[in-house]
Amino acid sequence: MRIDILTILPKLLEGPFADSIMKRAVEKSHAEIHIHDIREYTTDKHNKVDDYAFGGGAGMVMTIQPIADLIDKLQQERAYDEVIYLTPDGEQLNQSICNQLSLKGNLMMLCGHYKGVDQRVRDMYITREISIGDYVLSGGELAAAVLTDAIIRLVPGVLNDETSALSDSFQDHLLAPPVYTRPADYKGNKVPDILTGGNLKAIDQWRHEQSVERTKQRRPDLLSGEE
Amino acid sequence: MRIDILTILPKLLEGPFADSIMKRAVEKSHAEIHIHDIREYTTDKHNKVDDYAFGGGAGMVMTIQPIADLIDKLQQERAYDEVIYLTPDGEQLNQSICNQLSLKGNLMMLCGHYKGVDQRVRDMYITREISIGDYVLSGGELAAAVLTDAIIRLVPGVLNDETSALSDSFQDHLLAPPVYTRPADYKGNKVPDILTGGNLKAIDQWRHEQSVERTKQRRPDLLSGEE
Repeated sequence: MRIDILTILPKLLEGPFADSIMKRAVEKSHAEIHIHDIREYTTDKHNKVDDYAFGGGAGMVMTIQPIADLIDKLQQERAYDEVIYLTPDGEQLNQSICNQLSLKGNLMMLCGHYKGVDQRVRDMYITREISIGDYVLSGGELAAAVLTDAIIRLVPGVLNDETSALSDSFQDHLLAPPVYTRPADYKGNKVPDILTGGNLKAIDQWRHEQSVERTKQRRPDLLSGEE
Repeated sequence: MRIDILTILPKLLEGPFADSIMKRAVEKSHAEIHIHDIREYTTDKHNKVDDYAFGGGAGMVMTIQPIADLIDKLQQERAYDEVIYLTPDGEQLNQSICNQLSLKGNLMMLCGHYKGVDQRVRDMYITREISIGDYVLSGGELAAAVLTDAIIRLVPGVLNDETSALSDSFQDHLLAPPVYTRPADYKGNKVPDILTGGNLKAIDQWRHEQSVERTKQRRPDLLSGEE
């Protein structure tokens, strides 16, 4: 899988890909992540990539020219399955969209900033608009990092133990059960006896019950099959 | 506002705070962000911060000792309004929670990894569990960065133009209207005439209508006042 991220603040994306699972995914060649600085493509003599909004009002708008030229260049080099714009008014990201996208070959992600990109970029180039949640960020970079992380960990071979992702929250419409590790007694706070008893069947059943109970309490909407 | 982030992968958080609004917020003393490496607090002779789950199954669990010692130390130094655990089974983050949290003084955020933290950490120390969305990440670091960004931009003085945040999506239960900037004609794609006509009252009305229309189409749930 190849992911191209278009941003005016490439530095913001250095950390998230510098360590952890994403770094390993790249090293093991499960994924290629390319970060492009939109500013390198502006033809503006002052290197500008934004301007005031037509019609007035607070906040700057990202101009179409550098973004359009960069997307054109990338699309001439290869076909993209999706050109994604990260925006709070997009489709809400969930695990099933992540599963879908993890099967694609080439993805492009455009990070907005300020008031967002000129609407014509969205009309002319974007195939999918995604929101990582109902809140506003100072830019799309963290959203692109979140989306990249959520997708890449699902690419086969990226996690050390493939069963690990399958037991995550949401994969079966249930939240994960509580987990415990050593010591069995921490300053008088003990792990539930059942987990140290060695009866695997009983443990599986307890975990399932805990998952259902936690989902009922916290996210009854998941149990009804609605998202 | 002071935010303390507890992580086993501090490097992941270097990028997101290295540039942009969060960097300026720190420079202007609107916010202090402190990143703590949980591994420095482990008493394990091999420096371990995780272990196998009681009861078996795939995935490691973060041990209680280093986290508990670090939280104890920080809480001896100052009082925290919330000790937040970022987890996919937490309360779903939205703009109104961000508004609330932006008014607090001291926040602590704990980033989980692998299968999560030992349940006893959650029972003994965590005052609020927050999910940034219905998907699973390889760790809580990006979630903590997202939460920090969403909160800090709301702290008065952080954005250059305070009206800017007020016209964002979600602040009035509506999505933002489309935005346009120069040039007025890009390869034959023109901005709507109304935005260049100079009639500010008509522009305000058009924007409101566009917001309502976009919200109806994309997020009718917001209009009904339900979240």
